[in-house]
Amino acid sequence: MTTITEVTTDMSTFETLESEVRSYCRSFPTIFDKARGYKLWDVQGREFIDFFAGAGALNYGHNNPRIKRKLIDYLTDDHVVHSLDMATVAKENFLKKFQDVILAPREMEYKVMFPGPTGANSVESALKLARKVTGRQTVVSFTKGFHGMTLGALSVTGNSFKRHGAGVPLHHAVSMPYDNYHEDVDSLSLLEHYLDDEGSGLDMPAAIILETLQGEGGINVASNHWLQRVEAICRQRDILLIVDDVQVGCGRTGPFFSFEEAGIQPDIICLSKSIGGYGLPFALTLIKPKLDQWAPGEHNGTFRGHNLAFVASTEALSYWETDELTCETLRKGEIIQRSLSSMTAKHPDTEPEVRGRGLMQGIAFGRKGFAEKVCAIAFERGLIMETSGSDSEVIKVMPPLIIDDEGLNKGLAILDESIQIAKETR
Amino acid sequence: MTTITEVTTDMSTFETLESEVRSYCRSFPTIFDKARGYKLWDVQGREFIDFFAGAGALNYGHNNPRIKRKLIDYLTDDHVVHSLDMATVAKENFLKKFQDVILAPREMEYKVMFPGPTGANSVESALKLARKVTGRQTVVSFTKGFHGMTLGALSVTGNSFKRHGAGVPLHHAVSMPYDNYHEDVDSLSLLEHYLDDEGSGLDMPAAIILETLQGEGGINVASNHWLQRVEAICRQRDILLIVDDVQVGCGRTGPFFSFEEAGIQPDIICLSKSIGGYGLPFALTLIKPKLDQWAPGEHNGTFRGHNLAFVASTEALSYWETDELTCETLRKGEIIQRSLSSMTAKHPDTEPEVRGRGLMQGIAFGRKGFAEKVCAIAFERGLIMETSGSDSEVIKVMPPLIIDDEGLNKGLAILDESIQIAKETR
Amino acid sequence: MTTITEVTTDMSTFETLESEVRSYCRSFPTIFDKARGYKLWDVQGREFIDFFAGAGALNYGHNNPRIKRKLIDYLTDDHVVHSLDMATVAKENFLKKFQDVILAPREMEYKVMFPGPTGANSVESALKLARKVTGRQTVVSFTKGFHGMTLGALSVTGNSFKRHGAGVPLHHAVSMPYDNYHEDVDSLSLLEHYLDDEGSGLDMPAAIILETLQGEGGINVASNHWLQRVEAICRQRDILLIVDDVQVGCGRTGPFFSFEEAGIQPDIICLSKSIGGYGLPFALTLIKPKLDQWAPGEHNGTFRGHNLAFVASTEALSYWETDELTCETLRKGEIIQRSLSSMTAKHPDTEPEVRGRGLMQGIAFGRKGFAEKVCAIAFERGLIMETSGSDSEVIKVMPPLIIDDEGLNKGLAILDESIQIAKETR
Amino acid sequence: MTTITEVTTDMSTFETLESEVRSYCRSFPTIFDKARGYKLWDVQGREFIDFFAGAGALNYGHNNPRIKRKLIDYLTDDHVVHSLDMATVAKENFLKKFQDVILAPREMEYKVMFPGPTGANSVESALKLARKVTGRQTVVSFTKGFHGMTLGALSVTGNSFKRHGAGVPLHHAVSMPYDNYHEDVDSLSLLEHYLDDEGSGLDMPAAIILETLQGEGGINVASNHWLQRVEAICRQRDILLIVDDVQVGCGRTGPFFSFEEAGIQPDIICLSKSIGGYGLPFALTLIKPKLDQWAPGEHNGTFRGHNLAFVASTEALSYWETDELTCETLRKGEIIQRSLSSMTAKHPDTEPEVRGRGLMQGIAFGRKGFAEKVCAIAFERGLIMETSGSDSEVIKVMPPLIIDDEGLNKGLAILDESIQIAKETR
Repeated sequence: MTTITEVTTDMSTFETLESEVRSYCRSFPTIFDKARGYKLWDVQGREFIDFFAGAGALNYGHNNPRIKRKLIDYLTDDHVVHSLDMATVAKENFLKKFQDVILAPREMEYKVMFPGPTGANSVESALKLARKVTGRQTVVSFTKGFHGMTLGALSVTGNSFKRHGAGVPLHHAVSMPYDNYHEDVDSLSLLEHYLDDEGSGLDMPAAIILETLQGEGGINVASNHWLQRVEAICRQRDILLIVDDVQVGCGRTGPFFSFEEAGIQPDIICLSKSIGGYGLPFALTLIKPKLDQWAPGEHNGTFRGHNLAFVASTEALSYWETDELTCETLRKGEIIQRSLSSMTAKHPDTEPEVRGRGLMQGIAFGRKGFAEKVCAIAFERGLIMETSGSDSEVIKVMPPLIIDDEGLNKGLAILDESIQIAKETR
Repeated sequence: MTTITEVTTDMSTFETLESEVRSYCRSFPTIFDKARGYKLWDVQGREFIDFFAGAGALNYGHNNPRIKRKLIDYLTDDHVVHSLDMATVAKENFLKKFQDVILAPREMEYKVMFPGPTGANSVESALKLARKVTGRQTVVSFTKGFHGMTLGALSVTGNSFKRHGAGVPLHHAVSMPYDNYHEDVDSLSLLEHYLDDEGSGLDMPAAIILETLQGEGGINVASNHWLQRVEAICRQRDILLIVDDVQVGCGRTGPFFSFEEAGIQPDIICLSKSIGGYGLPFALTLIKPKLDQWAPGEHNGTFRGHNLAFVASTEALSYWETDELTCETLRKGEIIQRSLSSMTAKHPDTEPEVRGRGLMQGIAFGRKGFAEKVCAIAFERGLIMETSGSDSEVIKVMPPLIIDDEGLNKGLAILDESIQIAKETR
Repeated sequence: MTTITEVTTDMSTFETLESEVRSYCRSFPTIFDKARGYKLWDVQGREFIDFFAGAGALNYGHNNPRIKRKLIDYLTDDHVVHSLDMATVAKENFLKKFQDVILAPREMEYKVMFPGPTGANSVESALKLARKVTGRQTVVSFTKGFHGMTLGALSVTGNSFKRHGAGVPLHHAVSMPYDNYHEDVDSLSLLEHYLDDEGSGLDMPAAIILETLQGEGGINVASNHWLQRVEAICRQRDILLIVDDVQVGCGRTGPFFSFEEAGIQPDIICLSKSIGGYGLPFALTLIKPKLDQWAPGEHNGTFRGHNLAFVASTEALSYWETDELTCETLRKGEIIQRSLSSMTAKHPDTEPEVRGRGLMQGIAFGRKGFAEKVCAIAFERGLIMETSGSDSEVIKVMPPLIIDDEGLNKGLAILDESIQIAKETR
Repeated sequence: MTTITEVTTDMSTFETLESEVRSYCRSFPTIFDKARGYKLWDVQGREFIDFFAGAGALNYGHNNPRIKRKLIDYLTDDHVVHSLDMATVAKENFLKKFQDVILAPREMEYKVMFPGPTGANSVESALKLARKVTGRQTVVSFTKGFHGMTLGALSVTGNSFKRHGAGVPLHHAVSMPYDNYHEDVDSLSLLEHYLDDEGSGLDMPAAIILETLQGEGGINVASNHWLQRVEAICRQRDILLIVDDVQVGCGRTGPFFSFEEAGIQPDIICLSKSIGGYGLPFALTLIKPKLDQWAPGEHNGTFRGHNLAFVASTEALSYWETDELTCETLRKGEIIQRSLSSMTAKHPDTEPEVRGRGLMQGIAFGRKGFAEKVCAIAFERGLIMETSGSDSEVIKVMPPLIIDDEGLNKGLAILDESIQIAKETR
């Protein structure tokens, strides 16, 4: 692959007509046209390897051919596409397959709610339900957590730039230290102290909401032990545990749910992004049956049911009929880890730290602005990769799960090269 | 069409696996399979006329063949489907066509924001921006208003059942009387009194948010004069005017924007539902250029860009290249109005009141529970129609705009019959 | 009395050492030294008639000799002065006398709470209790209402300047129109509409809080009929009725409680100001026994019990052993009303409106800035009188109840003269 | 002193007429009549030593004869008692003496605000001003902090029982760990981490509010180093530092301000309780001149000015013309510390911990319920002493500063005896 800096694309339509709020089109300044698997092509035919995967929405790759076939057939035969939350064949198929392939084999008993098609919808519904069921209002979230942009989801999100965007103070949430947030603080010992001290100023929470691996927050991994302790803390005090598996679920770290290895049983689980299978807007909220205390229509929305997503998602669930995808993800995760370790070993002066699990890994660079530079150089060389962390200090390696070894190695090679160049061109 | 009560459908999958929050599948208890134009068919092959239109998301009908063709082609050729807010050919085409067909001919200058794929996302983004730009926090909404289920959107929604679902008190919003809310109150004279009185307890608002016709609230129509007065109130006091055209825009009342006849120029416009063309999740926030003060990424989301929706929406915009759809909608609106008036004239004891404009009309019944009964009977006879209003006291006639006269008259005949039967079977 | 403008007082200590927040010392720029009854003297020996009465805290006049004797005796004999809420002889005497002289004869059953020594403390305690007892959070207050400066009390206060001082948005309160707030609005018909409409956006309130006569808000009088309707609205919906009688209670309008004539029975009554008898900080919250659901110490404070105030208040209650004070107040109120009416008749160009009842009356002037000018001129001529209303558009005639006819007429003559001069010196 | 359990007092007036919220009269179930210095007498003539001192309001003892003389003279001569915030001779004298005796010798430049007569008023005014000046809304408070019962003050108070009493969620405040809150957590390192991490979820605060020694929270002492670090954290980030010296100021720990030894200069200082000199309701807010950005009357109240308190406070300030009181307090503090240490050494099984400084010391008992038992026994033996801490686990030794050695030793002997008895009578 040659560098592609010499060709530029006319972005003026976007600059003229679209709001200033647009963001990724600034980091990846070209116009994309086609995509398949782990590859994207822009209007000039330039090919890009995708280590971004729609921020986690494309675990099965772009335009997955198995799913695509189903979508075209569904459209062709005029099956119902939009139906709010009426019953449809597509929805029934999805519910059954999700039960059969995901929940039943894991002995997980959950009712399925369709809260609207985004992760934020799922989080909003989870918070509402937790507050309704417990009659309490406070929710404990964690530092660096990211749960969405609507007012309820934003209140449990740590990022100050996003929070400030609310334009109003954010309430009913308390941000406690995440695992390893501060080297000298045992975060859960502190949390327990707060919960059990009648003088701490922390009102008894309805729920604790967490990501098991914080993607947007900078690829921070919670240990299994930490997750188990959080669950125990919740159980002992009748606090609900909400796991936001929007980005890190659907196999991103190996198993379908990110928390399977920890062996915990959240009360409410938020899913979106890759649950849509094909990058279609879709979200689920999984609810332990005894907590399913909603009145009909108490939370609603026009796109609760979206049959193309049902069709795509149902087909994508076929990947989970065996453990092959999980095994492959773990295997590729190891490749990435070795590769990143070897890259960082060469550049200790960038103060690098390899982080993550499975196919969500990355490097945090202590050197300010370095991560963004690496990503910009990588893009010029045909690799799409984003930063995360509140100072954009982490590069994120997050390819579609279905990437082959050739693509993976090629992408990693570009990354290696890009770090080298970034260092040279201070 | 014969009555179809004798056949029942097995709804057990939904009853067993889906959350209690499900709602429309309770009102329309069958499993739908196929749909085209203004018709739906269930798994038993029963045909239904659709006077519901996806709660306003299906103005161009189910599975509109022109749009369907474009979607299948797009999928077939592996154009990029999911791309967050990166630039794509599909997005560029949409932006240009929206500019050329909608904004430019109306001499409307607005920047286009993709806030996430739901109406609530658009409302949340509008509220955030209004607060950011003005530095104020209060937003004035109106009685019976409906703007969405996320915490910010819910705070400007009037319905107490939905509000209660929040589980936390809702802040930063004040609900003032809508046009004709109370016969003895000039709602805007009162609003002005509050705004101009330093002792009223109403903090100077960032914005006023309204629907020009409240669909969920019971088909309450604001007069053009009232809308013009609201705009003047805003202008005189530097308050932003947000029009939520999610349900009533995209031609529902005739013109593309519901407020065109009133001649007002909102500062921010929320669009969703039918803007997606094919019932695909999609939303826009239109912002006057000087107010487009977002920082890049200050509001974001995984499904901001959704290329199938761009493709469908772009094709749907072709309907707006001439004024044919507007004229037809007004003509059919008159048919409906005549028909509803004649129906209600026959049943004064149900205390009926015909309401609405264009293809969002309905009958409010004073008799408690009557509207729900009519809809249930209509469903049994092959007509899908929902109620609205906080006591479900209004039946809503809201077919796809592309319905033909045969379908329209057939549906109205079933409605007429259903009212008769409802009266007889107290 | 001659004008006293030629003498000025050195206010530099206050200007140098005291915060900019000071206010009355700006309107009445002299240093006061002595006071008795309805008269004050400054350090230069200038005498002032007091039509201000400590903003309602001095109903029994300055340094009332009967009360003074008791205070000096109490101090001399080393009875306990500060005792938090421990039991003391002084407190027991107060409780018994308040029961015997005030509650029992009126057949009012209330428990007495000492919430801290200010009206705002009483209002805060009333709001807390109403929320606790009902489990609801919203409180309905009224336009132009004034209830205090602490965050809870401020949230039910209408004045935007004071509200803005909070520095945070004020929550859990909704401001509805007061009696005669807007000529075309039947305020209670609108309130009922909001309360009974599930789509109004008004959450079912814990309580309605009101003043029967709004002193700070501009001397706005609620009719007896209006108060009775509010009570009925509350009773029908299980909403608590809180009457803030801090300024207008203790006989200011004739009867001890301002609402006696209306015949209503509030659930909670807030008293402060003149209940202290001698201008000492003191407040009560009266609670219907079944609502007295406080846990011990759930609301507390260092100055809940303040024995000098118990002593002063107990002695002041002797005034209420007969109906003489009530009769005299009504008689003097008529003198004031006639006098104000005759003054205003002479100056229709100032757009005057006589308002009020008993010994809280005033004139609202349509002419901007006129009221403040009148008060400034009156001060120069030996009369202390403040303005009220959110634009300071109302002059307030509010002498101690014990003023004699000579003082009253003298003060009114100065007022008459001051209006005349104010008109002449535009 | 003999035990006094055999005599009981008739508390029925209080039980019948006063609200259930009453508290201290339950712990000290007798009716007090007279008081002088560190002694109280009840109606039966029983004498009590006061180790409670009006919860810190009686540093100069009950009915201090020097102050009493001034009060009687002031009353006798009819000097003005109630004057809102008008200028009076008494107020001028206070302002000058406070400047001369307290501020000037310490080279402290502060404007004096009279925010209303309670500590909560002072805290409310401090929070308002900090928010106004910075334009931010969040305030950082600390675990176990106690700042008052009004809604603003309560939001920065840790005690969950008191917080719950609000009946509404408390906003705009974040409770961080106080010094030594958790043995494994360096509280300020964590706070800094939160403040400097854009992803922590802690919005940049307007102010940090703290007590240097938490009385109500259980006698928790912040080290000078910790206080200096807090000040540095504030200075580096332009956060205001508010010290609530309501209970622990006015010499309670030796110097007039509790933070003098730490050498910090708070931006705003809250004073109440003993600043009133004689147990009269009174409070000050001290404001650095550049922060005195109040508009006139932006915060007001009827009892801002209370001339008896000015008179008493002015006389009490004479104690501060020399350093005698400070020296004596430190000396007596050492006596207490030695005494408590020796008591606790005898009873290791009660898991005792001596805490505090100067004349605010105490013993925390690990054994549940033990502290309350000790206080109850002590009361029966003629010693008034309260518990603190959220589980009432700490006994508080807090006599008037003017106690003599005889009284101090006598009280400590009763305490010693009471611990012994409490242990024996499990």
